[in-house]
Amino acid sequence: MPGPSPLDLRPLLEARSVAIVGASASAHKIGGRPVAYLKRSGFAGRIVPINPDRKEIQGLQAFPTLRATEPVDIAVIVTPAEGVEAAVDDCLAAGTKAMVLLSSGFAETGAEGRRRQEELAKKAGAAGSVLLGPNCLGVFNAWIGLTATFTTALDEAMPSKGGFSYFGQSGALGAYWMNLAMASNLGVAKWITTGNEAHISLADALNYLANDAETKVIGGYIEDIKNPGAFRAAAQAAARNGKAVMAIKAGRSAIGARAVTAHTGADAGDDKVYQKLLDECGIVRVDSLAAMNETARLMLSPRGPCSGQRLAVVSVSGGAGVLIADAASDVGLDMPDFNAADKAALKACIPSFATAQNPLDITGSVVADTSNFARTLDLVTNSPEHDVALIFIGSMRSIAEDLVAGIKRAAAGSKKPLAVIWIGAMADTVAALEAAGVPTFDEIPPAMRALARAKVLRGNAR
Amino acid sequence: MPGPSPLDLRPLLEARSVAIVGASASAHKIGGRPVAYLKRSGFAGRIVPINPDRKEIQGLQAFPTLRATEPVDIAVIVTPAEGVEAAVDDCLAAGTKAMVLLSSGFAETGAEGRRRQEELAKKAGAAGSVLLGPNCLGVFNAWIGLTATFTTALDEAMPSKGGFSYFGQSGALGAYWMNLAMASNLGVAKWITTGNEAHISLADALNYLANDAETKVIGGYIEDIKNPGAFRAAAQAAARNGKAVMAIKAGRSAIGARAVTAHTGADAGDDKVYQKLLDECGIVRVDSLAAMNETARLMLSPRGPCSGQRLAVVSVSGGAGVLIADAASDVGLDMPDFNAADKAALKACIPSFATAQNPLDITGSVVADTSNFARTLDLVTNSPEHDVALIFIGSMRSIAEDLVAGIKRAAAGSKKPLAVIWIGAMADTVAALEAAGVPTFDEIPPAMRALARAKVLRGNAR
Repeated sequence: MPGPSPLDLRPLLEARSVAIVGASASAHKIGGRPVAYLKRSGFAGRIVPINPDRKEIQGLQAFPTLRATEPVDIAVIVTPAEGVEAAVDDCLAAGTKAMVLLSSGFAETGAEGRRRQEELAKKAGAAGSVLLGPNCLGVFNAWIGLTATFTTALDEAMPSKGGFSYFGQSGALGAYWMNLAMASNLGVAKWITTGNEAHISLADALNYLANDAETKVIGGYIEDIKNPGAFRAAAQAAARNGKAVMAIKAGRSAIGARAVTAHTGADAGDDKVYQKLLDECGIVRVDSLAAMNETARLMLSPRGPCSGQRLAVVSVSGGAGVLIADAASDVGLDMPDFNAADKAALKACIPSFATAQNPLDITGSVVADTSNFARTLDLVTNSPEHDVALIFIGSMRSIAEDLVAGIKRAAAGSKKPLAVIWIGAMADTVAALEAAGVPTFDEIPPAMRALARAKVLRGNAR
Repeated sequence: MPGPSPLDLRPLLEARSVAIVGASASAHKIGGRPVAYLKRSGFAGRIVPINPDRKEIQGLQAFPTLRATEPVDIAVIVTPAEGVEAAVDDCLAAGTKAMVLLSSGFAETGAEGRRRQEELAKKAGAAGSVLLGPNCLGVFNAWIGLTATFTTALDEAMPSKGGFSYFGQSGALGAYWMNLAMASNLGVAKWITTGNEAHISLADALNYLANDAETKVIGGYIEDIKNPGAFRAAAQAAARNGKAVMAIKAGRSAIGARAVTAHTGADAGDDKVYQKLLDECGIVRVDSLAAMNETARLMLSPRGPCSGQRLAVVSVSGGAGVLIADAASDVGLDMPDFNAADKAALKACIPSFATAQNPLDITGSVVADTSNFARTLDLVTNSPEHDVALIFIGSMRSIAEDLVAGIKRAAAGSKKPLAVIWIGAMADTVAALEAAGVPTFDEIPPAMRALARAKVLRGNAR
């Protein structure tokens, strides 16, 4: 049973010293990864490998037990399931404030495993400590380089510091969440995987993130919510503090619900009840990590949040303009027309056979002359009827530099958020636009859905 | 008004000689691109630049008019709108069987433009010729290197020969369609953009593709259907000949419909009427080119069509397995469980804390030992309760080669279609799997929707 919520996770997420119980000399083994990550993450505190068989691990002094060294803030426990009780006893005897239990083999295997994890949680609670897991992937705090995890997501690089945070039962999905954030150059704040939730639950994780200064946008993966009252209170705190919260609720289907139980021993529950709870919490539901990432990129754009209020659309393809209008209508976004003065000015920027209206089809003639593109953007980004300028481009790799320059100039000359949908863009084109604070997408429907979600999130967090 | 359907497009798509009226010496100008493309596409026939001011264009002999040289099968007309009438007269006087009118400035600009294009169509029809466009991007036949188009999609490379064909009013969307096909290494058969449809309409294009031996899967972009009876007959021919047809119908929304008229002068009509027509035609509607491409990759997989009948799911993440089950349920796909014997055999391949059921969570322990992964796949790909094996992997770049080898071995040892969803895969990993005939996706919901569409398409074309 999870403890009385909210448990305070600051000792866990803001630890200044970390022991790894079951530390391995190999940086690729699960007992070695947390040590290796801590060494290269910029973590400024003590790193204390615990291993009865070695005096040194990855260049650090190792100790046989936690009691053999000075007290540490948190312990990451990586031992096999059968050694976990002894490890927890050792941690508690040494006064450890928080334990991260990465080991599997508890509630997800049946009643006996559940009983054992409940026993561990009871012990931790009685000692005034908190316990994360078991069967979880730990926590990560990008702002202090705290890598209390063996996730392979940190194998190649560490994410940059930023405002996007994760909470969820699943560590693997958390890892993919982190990979996607890194791939789209989205800065990360905190990352909390709760696994079987013997003690710390999603409500505690959300409560921590709701009150965390670095966290701006929160993405969650939910199999079940063990204490809905505490979860609701945490979500309310998030809204009060201006944080946007999205979540995947897994186990909607019968087979999905059965898979949830096999995964973390949880009961996925009645989806209608969960949808009602999420709605009450102002949490926007998404069906994929990609959707979560796309929305976060809009919310965390360096030029300020970009969302789907009153869109002005400029397209190099008439057909794409039509599809954008259809997709906007599907998700309830407005595309008011330009005013008469702007229409007259726009008419001078487009070929004679094109029509000055929203969506504005500047036609493929932009390939022959990109100067009109920049003039068009200047007009559109300053149109009083619109909050956001959305630009569609397809292919056009040979003039990509000119187009990017035009978009950057328009962004610099306007306070209005800009977003780009560019089918077939080169990776460095997307990177250049993102670096200029212009969120960039590769297809129409996902972009429009993300703009609509961002609109709802900004309303909820107001 | 489009001519009596179906017009025979074989003279157009299977031309053995091509004139370019308004040919330019610059390979980057719109009058120069068709010449440049024909020169490097492997087109074996005559290429005849028409230009009154030059004797030579891009190394080829140029002629002042079509009548100054031997008759050609088709003429690509790239002159500005005001010169089009004279160009068409010249073509018809020279006995040209088909004309591709790339010029803009006709029905999309209003009544006078519409009258002019109708006049051109009448002339062409009376002379026994066919006219494509105006305001279109022409045609492409990958099988004979016929590039009667100035689309920038062919700037960098030509698509390989294959079974995927396009028809649609929009040339730009056709270009993006081609870019996506090339990016996903999907072979192309024929490509027909109809623009304003003064003479040749979508029904004629679909009829051609329905009877084309190289075409296996057809993707369409529809703003309007000018002759629904002929279109329905063409779709029926496609179904009879075992071709799968998908389409985007644009202009669903009020603003989208207005944009359609500005784009090609078409009337997007009542979406309910169109949906009914598409349903009657067995055409599966998609909302994006990406969705069309993903479905085509399943249908045209080198190991045979892969679709969403009775899925067996193997996942390295329990959470991802849950999301796959939920997404399968959303789109109506079945995931029956394994039989008792297979469960017993699978139990031996997975960690003791995991459960042998569908979706099968083989857990992240695969990182430590990939041998069980291969054994699991051998069992799953031969399970009698399932038609398709769907494998989920996330990240795991360090063991990607082992995983790909396991999947390839399983594919070689089974006639069952395999598909992979791999979040965070490297591009060469995806390429290796696709080359082995295993369609590979980067997110769960789009993959499941594509599997569901492929299931419907295979049912329709049966």
